[in-house]
Amino acid sequence: MERLCQTAGVSKRSMYQLFATKDDLVAESLRVHGPAIVTGYFPASDAELSPRERIRYVFERLDEQSGTPGFYGCPFVNTAVETRDPDHPAAAVARAFKDQLTAYFATHAKTAGAGDPEGLAVQLTMVFDGAAVRAVMRGTTLDGAATRTADALLAAAGVQ
Amino acid sequence: MERLCQTAGVSKRSMYQLFATKDDLVAESLRVHGPAIVTGYFPASDAELSPRERIRYVFERLDEQSGTPGFYGCPFVNTAVETRDPDHPAAAVARAFKDQLTAYFATHAKTAGAGDPEGLAVQLTMVFDGAAVRAVMRGTTLDGAATRTADALLAAAGVQ
Repeated sequence: MERLCQTAGVSKRSMYQLFATKDDLVAESLRVHGPAIVTGYFPASDAELSPRERIRYVFERLDEQSGTPGFYGCPFVNTAVETRDPDHPAAAVARAFKDQLTAYFATHAKTAGAGDPEGLAVQLTMVFDGAAVRAVMRGTTLDGAATRTADALLAAAGVQ
Repeated sequence: MERLCQTAGVSKRSMYQLFATKDDLVAESLRVHGPAIVTGYFPASDAELSPRERIRYVFERLDEQSGTPGFYGCPFVNTAVETRDPDHPAAAVARAFKDQLTAYFATHAKTAGAGDPEGLAVQLTMVFDGAAVRAVMRGTTLDGAATRTADALLAAAGVQ
């Protein structure tokens, strides 16, 4: 908190007038910076991509990002894991962004004709998070492993 | 560090005589407690299980554990994510335990006749980690999602 106030050039008193607790500050930071992070993983809505390609796009970006300097995985996962408390305000924000990703997968899985698009979407989300964690743990490129795993799940679900 | 010394009933001086840095202490804690955690996810070596069942066993335990009180996901993932530094001594310990899980998957995937057992093992490890993260973020049961995802990957890899 001290370092944060110093960097921001505000007094602790001012900081606590803006944010009732440190937890609220973390949650608000995620809420403000989240959309820009999400945007980088989604294709333009008018991109000429099939539903299957729209799903793969997300994993291709993750594979690409992994191992690059300054990549620290998924900030939503990282924050939720650090709090280790589903009731933490920041965990709620993290879940909301994660649900957005799952809904994106479900929408396109449904269009692509998956038998259980919601189930597939949860599976794909877990692969995304597991791949992000792997990249953080190793600090090296995923070497396409995220996309390959998504491909396997899409194949198993009969999505062409 | 203060709370740790208080709980352990030792002086800071003694603590730093045992562990040169706080990082070393975290790494050592993971090294000491890791094996017992791993053991809970593996079947007995003389259990009458097929290679495929041995792989599924790990995910069934994770599904079971998720949502139970005191379950905080995978301590290796959590520690590595918190350090956000692959060069941290605790991250190295975390990776070693994770590699043990991947090797277990690879061994049984190979016996089960998977075309690319090492690749499949990495995919299964990512699913394990992603499922563990999901359970931590939500604080609820995975409701079988980890095992279902493993089943889909095993099917895609032609493992019966």
